[in-house]
Amino acid sequence: MENEPLLMIPGPVPVPEKVRMAMLRQAINHRGPEFGSIYAESVRVLKDLFHTGNELFILSGSGTAAMEAAIGNFGRDRRIVSLVNGKFGERMGKIGQRYGDVTVIQSDWGAPLDLEGLERALEEGAELVTLVHNETSSGIKNPAAAVGKLTRKHGALFVMDGITSIGGDLVDVDAWGVDVAFVGSQKCLAAPPGLSAVSVSKKAWERLSEKRPYYLDLAAYRKSAANSPMETPYTPAVPLFLALREALAIVEREGLEKRIGRHRRLAEAVRAAVAAWGLPMFPRLDPLHEYSNTVTAVAIPDGVNEKVLRATVKGFGIEIAGGQDQLKGRIFRIGHMGAVSAPEILATISAVEFALGKAGWKTRESGVSAACRVLG
Amino acid sequence: MENEPLLMIPGPVPVPEKVRMAMLRQAINHRGPEFGSIYAESVRVLKDLFHTGNELFILSGSGTAAMEAAIGNFGRDRRIVSLVNGKFGERMGKIGQRYGDVTVIQSDWGAPLDLEGLERALEEGAELVTLVHNETSSGIKNPAAAVGKLTRKHGALFVMDGITSIGGDLVDVDAWGVDVAFVGSQKCLAAPPGLSAVSVSKKAWERLSEKRPYYLDLAAYRKSAANSPMETPYTPAVPLFLALREALAIVEREGLEKRIGRHRRLAEAVRAAVAAWGLPMFPRLDPLHEYSNTVTAVAIPDGVNEKVLRATVKGFGIEIAGGQDQLKGRIFRIGHMGAVSAPEILATISAVEFALGKAGWKTRESGVSAACRVLG
Repeated sequence: MENEPLLMIPGPVPVPEKVRMAMLRQAINHRGPEFGSIYAESVRVLKDLFHTGNELFILSGSGTAAMEAAIGNFGRDRRIVSLVNGKFGERMGKIGQRYGDVTVIQSDWGAPLDLEGLERALEEGAELVTLVHNETSSGIKNPAAAVGKLTRKHGALFVMDGITSIGGDLVDVDAWGVDVAFVGSQKCLAAPPGLSAVSVSKKAWERLSEKRPYYLDLAAYRKSAANSPMETPYTPAVPLFLALREALAIVEREGLEKRIGRHRRLAEAVRAAVAAWGLPMFPRLDPLHEYSNTVTAVAIPDGVNEKVLRATVKGFGIEIAGGQDQLKGRIFRIGHMGAVSAPEILATISAVEFALGKAGWKTRESGVSAACRVLG
Repeated sequence: MENEPLLMIPGPVPVPEKVRMAMLRQAINHRGPEFGSIYAESVRVLKDLFHTGNELFILSGSGTAAMEAAIGNFGRDRRIVSLVNGKFGERMGKIGQRYGDVTVIQSDWGAPLDLEGLERALEEGAELVTLVHNETSSGIKNPAAAVGKLTRKHGALFVMDGITSIGGDLVDVDAWGVDVAFVGSQKCLAAPPGLSAVSVSKKAWERLSEKRPYYLDLAAYRKSAANSPMETPYTPAVPLFLALREALAIVEREGLEKRIGRHRRLAEAVRAAVAAWGLPMFPRLDPLHEYSNTVTAVAIPDGVNEKVLRATVKGFGIEIAGGQDQLKGRIFRIGHMGAVSAPEILATISAVEFALGKAGWKTRESGVSAACRVLG
C-alpha cells in the first residue's frame, strides 16, 4: 500500500501517519510555552513507560548519544564494568573506554551473560555497570532485574540501555534499581529516529562527574528543564519532538500493558513460525535469559545464503535484517516492535517462508499456519 | 496566513512547505542506497555553500553539537584561544575548557575582536583558534579572513562557527584557511532544527586527537561516509535529512550568489529602517568588522521596555528576539535569514515601528518607507 518497503528490522520501524503528519507544522520557537508543554507531556508519558519517578530528559540525538550521555556524565575516570553479549553491549564498553577504566565481561554474542564474573568485578570495586537490556544484535533479553540487584548490593551505579525494550516490553527502572536508563525514539515508540530519552536517579546525580561532555551534559539538561516554560539547553530537533509527542499519545491510548502484550504475542507468533520451519533460534538461553520480544534472531542453516534470502523477501517489499559484524551471513533478524501488528507479521512470515523454500530449505511445517494459531 | 507566528528571530526560521512535506515519508532504512544518495547530494551542495573541497559530514545534532565535534576532535589537551564578542563565542570557550587549555580573548559583546591579542596568543604557542563568524547574540560579523590569515601564519588550526552565515552570507572556507567550519540546519538554510554540517581540512585530520567523543567522533563519520552507500556511524535523524535535502535543492535553484544578495538587501532594508527610527545599531564597528547580514541587533532606547515592545510585535503574529544573558532588556534583534523575503521584512518593520510608537519613541521618519526604498 505504501510506496516504501515495510521495515521489519529492529528499528527504525514504520511510523504511523499521524506521527509523521505532526512534523508538517511551520517552525515554532523552542523557547516558549508551547514547546515547553510538548516537552513536559512527553516526559510524563515516558516516565510511565520507564516505570520511574526519576528525572527524565529528551536529547536531540540517537540512542548512541544517550549511551554516551550516561557514561560521559557518570563514568568519567570511574571503574566501569560492561556486560557484553552483542554489538550494543560492545558499544557501551567502547564508549566506556573513552571516559573511564573498563572491564568487559564478555560472553559470546547471543549467549547468557556471566553474572558471577559481574559479582567478582563488583567485589573488586567496580563503580558503574553497563547492561543492554534487549540486545537486538543477537535477539536475547538480558536479566536486568538480577543485574540491578547485584549492582545495588555493591553500591555501584547501574546504567541500562533500554533502547529497544522500553515502550514494547516490561521495564521497571525503579524496581530494578536502574540509575540511568534510556530509550530511542525509532524503536518500540514508533517515532522517527533522532531522539532519545534518559532517566537519572538521585544516586546518579550524587555521583555526577565534574568534567562532562557539553552537548550531552545532563546537568545542563536538568537546569533548562527546571525553567518555566521547560526548555532544552541547546536547540532541539523540534519536528522530532512534535512527532514523539504524537507517538506517545498513541502509546498512551493503547495502554502500556496492552502494548506489551501485543509485542509478546507478535514475538510468540514469529517464534512459532521459526519452530515450524525447523530452524534454530540464535540465542542460547538459561533460566535468567529470555528471547527478545521485540526482535527475533534466527540461525541461518547450512546451504542457505542469507543475502539471497533477504533479497527474496525484499522482492515482496519487506525488509528484514541480517546479522551485524561477526554475525554477518550467520543469522537473519525479524523486528516486531512499535506500531506493527498481525498483518505485518503474517506478511513477513509468508515472505520469509517462501524465501526459505526457494533457497532449498525444507520447512517442517507451515510457519504461516503456526503464526496464525498464535495470533488468531 | 499560517497559524504559527512568523519567526523573525535568528533561527529557527520559517521553513518552506516543500521542505516540511519531505518529512511526511514513511520510515526508510538509513543503511541503503537511497539514504546514501540523499546524504551524498546534501554534502555536495553544502560544500558549495562552504566554498570548500574539504571533507564534510552531516551530524544529527544542533550547531552546538558541531561546535563540540570541532573542539572535541581537534582540541583535546591543546592550547586553545577563543575570540569572544558574544554568547556563541563564549560557548566555544566553554566547550574548549572541557577539552583543552583555553585563553579567552574577551571583547565587549558587539565590539570588535582584539586581533593584536590573538597574534600575541599565537606567538605564545596557541594551537587552535575559535571564532564565531556571525555573532547573532550581538549582530556583528567578525573578520574571518583576517583571523584565518593570522592563524595560518602561525600554523595553528582555525575553527570557525559559520552556523548563522553559511548559506546566507559569503563564506570562503578554503580561501580563508578554515580548518573546521560548521553550519546549522535551522538558520540560513531554512531547514528544520536538529542537524549540523562540519567540514574538516587535511591539516586538521593530521592533528586529530587520539581520544575523542563518541557520538561526535568525526573519524567515525569519516569511516562511515567512505562506505558505499554512504552512511552515518549511528542512526541519523532521517526526516531531518530528507528536509535538509529539499532545503538545499531550493538553495541551489536560487543560486548562492543571488541568495547572498537577497540576504544583504534584506539586511540593508532593516538597517535603513533602524536609521529612520533614529535608533542606534548595537554593534560597534571598525574597518574589519561589519554588521551581520542575517540578524540586526538594535539598542533599546531609554524608557522603552523591551518585553512590552516584543509583546506588541507578537500581537501581529510576528516574533522578534530580545537580548540574551547580559543583553536582556538592552537590545532587540530581527532575524532576516533563510527563506524570508520582502513581505516578511516589511510586515516586521511595520509592526516594530508601531510598537516603538506605542512605547513612546518618536521615530525620526518612517522606517517602512526607508525599507521600501531599499527593497523596491
